[in-house]
Amino acid sequence: MSKKIIIDCDPGIDDALALALAHGSRAVDLVGVTTVAGNVGLPRTTDNALRLADFYGIAAPVARGADRPLMRPPRTAGHVHGETGLGAAQLPDPAREPVAEHAVDFLIESLAQQPGEISLIAVGPLTNIALALRKEPRIAEWAREFVVMGGSSTRGNITPAAEFNVHADPEAAAMAFGADWRAVMAGLDLTHQAQLSAPVRRRFAGLGRLEEELLAPCLDVYEQHVDYREGPVIHDACAVAYAIAPEIFRADPAAVRVETRGEHTSGMTVVDFAAAQPDADVLTTLDTDAFWDLVADALHRVAERLPQV
Amino acid sequence: MSKKIIIDCDPGIDDALALALAHGSRAVDLVGVTTVAGNVGLPRTTDNALRLADFYGIAAPVARGADRPLMRPPRTAGHVHGETGLGAAQLPDPAREPVAEHAVDFLIESLAQQPGEISLIAVGPLTNIALALRKEPRIAEWAREFVVMGGSSTRGNITPAAEFNVHADPEAAAMAFGADWRAVMAGLDLTHQAQLSAPVRRRFAGLGRLEEELLAPCLDVYEQHVDYREGPVIHDACAVAYAIAPEIFRADPAAVRVETRGEHTSGMTVVDFAAAQPDADVLTTLDTDAFWDLVADALHRVAERLPQV
Amino acid sequence: MSKKIIIDCDPGIDDALALALAHGSRAVDLVGVTTVAGNVGLPRTTDNALRLADFYGIAAPVARGADRPLMRPPRTAGHVHGETGLGAAQLPDPAREPVAEHAVDFLIESLAQQPGEISLIAVGPLTNIALALRKEPRIAEWAREFVVMGGSSTRGNITPAAEFNVHADPEAAAMAFGADWRAVMAGLDLTHQAQLSAPVRRRFAGLGRLEEELLAPCLDVYEQHVDYREGPVIHDACAVAYAIAPEIFRADPAAVRVETRGEHTSGMTVVDFAAAQPDADVLTTLDTDAFWDLVADALHRVAERLPQV
Amino acid sequence: MSKKIIIDCDPGIDDALALALAHGSRAVDLVGVTTVAGNVGLPRTTDNALRLADFYGIAAPVARGADRPLMRPPRTAGHVHGETGLGAAQLPDPAREPVAEHAVDFLIESLAQQPGEISLIAVGPLTNIALALRKEPRIAEWAREFVVMGGSSTRGNITPAAEFNVHADPEAAAMAFGADWRAVMAGLDLTHQAQLSAPVRRRFAGLGRLEEELLAPCLDVYEQHVDYREGPVIHDACAVAYAIAPEIFRADPAAVRVETRGEHTSGMTVVDFAAAQPDADVLTTLDTDAFWDLVADALHRVAERLPQV
Repeated sequence: MSKKIIIDCDPGIDDALALALAHGSRAVDLVGVTTVAGNVGLPRTTDNALRLADFYGIAAPVARGADRPLMRPPRTAGHVHGETGLGAAQLPDPAREPVAEHAVDFLIESLAQQPGEISLIAVGPLTNIALALRKEPRIAEWAREFVVMGGSSTRGNITPAAEFNVHADPEAAAMAFGADWRAVMAGLDLTHQAQLSAPVRRRFAGLGRLEEELLAPCLDVYEQHVDYREGPVIHDACAVAYAIAPEIFRADPAAVRVETRGEHTSGMTVVDFAAAQPDADVLTTLDTDAFWDLVADALHRVAERLPQV
Repeated sequence: MSKKIIIDCDPGIDDALALALAHGSRAVDLVGVTTVAGNVGLPRTTDNALRLADFYGIAAPVARGADRPLMRPPRTAGHVHGETGLGAAQLPDPAREPVAEHAVDFLIESLAQQPGEISLIAVGPLTNIALALRKEPRIAEWAREFVVMGGSSTRGNITPAAEFNVHADPEAAAMAFGADWRAVMAGLDLTHQAQLSAPVRRRFAGLGRLEEELLAPCLDVYEQHVDYREGPVIHDACAVAYAIAPEIFRADPAAVRVETRGEHTSGMTVVDFAAAQPDADVLTTLDTDAFWDLVADALHRVAERLPQV
Repeated sequence: MSKKIIIDCDPGIDDALALALAHGSRAVDLVGVTTVAGNVGLPRTTDNALRLADFYGIAAPVARGADRPLMRPPRTAGHVHGETGLGAAQLPDPAREPVAEHAVDFLIESLAQQPGEISLIAVGPLTNIALALRKEPRIAEWAREFVVMGGSSTRGNITPAAEFNVHADPEAAAMAFGADWRAVMAGLDLTHQAQLSAPVRRRFAGLGRLEEELLAPCLDVYEQHVDYREGPVIHDACAVAYAIAPEIFRADPAAVRVETRGEHTSGMTVVDFAAAQPDADVLTTLDTDAFWDLVADALHRVAERLPQV
Repeated sequence: MSKKIIIDCDPGIDDALALALAHGSRAVDLVGVTTVAGNVGLPRTTDNALRLADFYGIAAPVARGADRPLMRPPRTAGHVHGETGLGAAQLPDPAREPVAEHAVDFLIESLAQQPGEISLIAVGPLTNIALALRKEPRIAEWAREFVVMGGSSTRGNITPAAEFNVHADPEAAAMAFGADWRAVMAGLDLTHQAQLSAPVRRRFAGLGRLEEELLAPCLDVYEQHVDYREGPVIHDACAVAYAIAPEIFRADPAAVRVETRGEHTSGMTVVDFAAAQPDADVLTTLDTDAFWDLVADALHRVAERLPQV
């Protein structure tokens, strides 16, 4: 039986790939998508989630969440993801609305109804997660696992010390990492191992409309603004891949603290691998070949099953 | 027509008096009570709110809220309010349950249904208010006014710099004061003008069961632990009194910031009366005689209308 | 035998009065003046100290100290003290140079040579004091007493929370208050009791050149920019008055901490009068009449003994 | 003509090697040694500097400096360097005293007398440097260069975020990196390239008393407590090596900020290689073979010239 997952996201180009990976994988069953302000504003991330769901044929509900960080002024990353958040992709207007429930309530109710069953994968700022934890602290027990794309154990991307998702809402991240579950952290040291090189990208050839209408117009923009040696880093897909195939990752126990007060380090994750009482599992290495196999396989399944327009 | 109010509280002895004042006043209509962890833990504050509602004959719904601050470890003030939170009072077990809705949703829905109609009076830590603001930012428009018992423009009580309610959840207080409404702050500089002196207390004589079963056993405990020159300070009632009779207060415009990062000042309200852009009204003086008239009058009405046991 | 004092200062108008008080008092013997950047930059504060010494006839050495705070960008208060730091006064160019020694070394050596004999009175930012304490920690034992004009136990002046001298160099202030001596704090709550009202100022009539060439052109400027009910506050003179006549002050034991990290409270002194282990004496009340008697008496002596030009 | 250098240090085992490298190198002329509290307390670091100077035959003056950090409680690293700071080495009692001048004054005067001539190499906490900068800001112009062993651009050693020297006195480090010179930072990312592997150590064989009386008893202790893949890291020698042979290092321009306020990141260096206005040169790679050649060569020269006992 496949593992149920909810993805809390801010699409965003790598979110689009994470959703495709979840939808295309046989090992997980995507039972919900919640949105948060992040890469772009909430109206866009919600709209993008709906468009992607329509395009991929995802039936799961989409719930709209928080429109701003808990305490910080909103900051987006439109320079990376393009103005709409999906590069140059032009998906049709959404055919449906988000559900009436707020993402916070959708998360709480979903987890309450199936305690121990659902993996929660957060790939945007952690505002929704933090609000849900304070409204219903028991979700930390009810979640099957909690995987975060965020943070770093060495250097950041949005500042020298901080990664974008954690930096966007450090207080929420502190609450999410500090809750009574054992967070799995897919930070930059891990995701930088998932660089989409030219040879890998060639494996996505022949994906038809998936490639033409989504992957190409997204990745062409993304590549221009994200400067890594081999190619753009598909951060968010790593967290979903962990839910699908934890065996292709190395996870090291660590204590993870989020700096909320530093003058130059706000939003940094401080990862102590020598902590006497580790409270998280930090993903440190990735079997890159196996990862791209997972992604390529999922993308092919998505491509085959794309809804007719 | 009387002004509708919701009281967000953590009863607490002075909360009990604030509820009595609201219930006994002709000028306001108490349409809801929400509870939060504060003076004592959430189970107690909720239980106390229900017992007080039964005892006074308050029909309005009671909704249970947040059981802990956003980011800080919970701290109570049981040393002041007694182990149960209501001194030595022994009110009967509650005859009803809180409503099914979470306080956050109760606040949002109440304000949404009657935009511009309801005054929100917060007399405990501001956790519920902050969560509601992030879940539904528009409540800042929908509230008729927002009155806080909390903070200080000079010195604190729980620390030399910070007042208890703000110190208990500084991040929530920062969010509440920072929202798009004009908060009215009833801080310690104001509430210390509401000391319940012996002559004032004699005015409460002849209140029968209200006095015997609630006021006396509460205030006898409260007096032992709160050391002011003239008598115990009835902080929370001041915020309700403002909703009833703003004309008996002096309010000075100011910018109010909540310190969340200081080493020695965490939870302090920094009140700038000279700010170019004031965003709050800080209550600075109180017509003490008029205030006690209000309270005495309300208590007499409550006493007369106490439900039969 | 009179008490020896060194004044560390940043003249500044009220510094000028503090120096006059020290020079004119029979009870103290001014054995040194050290200068620091503060109300105006170091070149001006040093030049002003020299001009004042010449004008008053102070023979004690003047030593130049730190030209900037330890960690903060320099900020002056030229808006209060006038461009030169001495209002509209136009004293002659100094006839002498500061001593070759740095103020830090002058302080250390003076205190080392006469351990237990010299009171150190700091009425500017505490940069010199902090540097001296780290270069020679034993000065904390050697000083007869350490009196600071700085801080507040309620509200600030340069920000709602912070007083100018402490705010100008909070790290230095933290080091000075934290050293192994029992600091005496003359903060704003005390100094605001020393408002130079019109009736008091009339007592300074008939002071001849002292009045015409210094007091009037200083105070006329000072009054325009310092807005108190009764008149300008002569902060710095209070600290010197304590060295002269501690019996006219009430001092309450307290723990004094300096906030260096707050977002809105940087440079605030947090005064805990209930501390289990008080480490300072905070001056809380002043016998105002006795204070002005001291000042008037000293000014008359200074006026009588002014050097001929 | 050889380059003049002053080493500010806290010996310390790797300090002992740094001093040997400086003394043994033909390219630099060690004109002074200043001591500071760090790896062990000031009495020990000063005593060790004197013993090492006697043992090696260093004629340059040794000046004693600050006995504690500016604002933090003193912390030593006796667990790494042994109780005395020099592992199990038992050098004879010093034959001389430190000079009468304080290290701060020694630094200022040395640099003042030969502006543009002397390289300042700091390999301990930066307390002396900071005090000297505030007492005489012009040393930033007068120093030929300023090289720091301290900080990191990825992870720390004493905490997950901070390196020992910077963490020991973050405020001093902030002042040192922030001064008007272009600091050269030899942080952990660089020094970890200088691991003393077994093959390298074999090159030190045949050094006679230098090996028997100093290197062996030091390094045997050091190796037990410093856990790297190949061998102990000779941090401090890297900074001296840079003064000797900058061409064997890669230096990348960066802005370096020291975090003094973080809850979990205090004492971290935040290194921004993309800064618009770099203010430091951060050493990123080392020609390891060339480095060990330098060290081995210098040690042989020291060994040959050891004073007779």
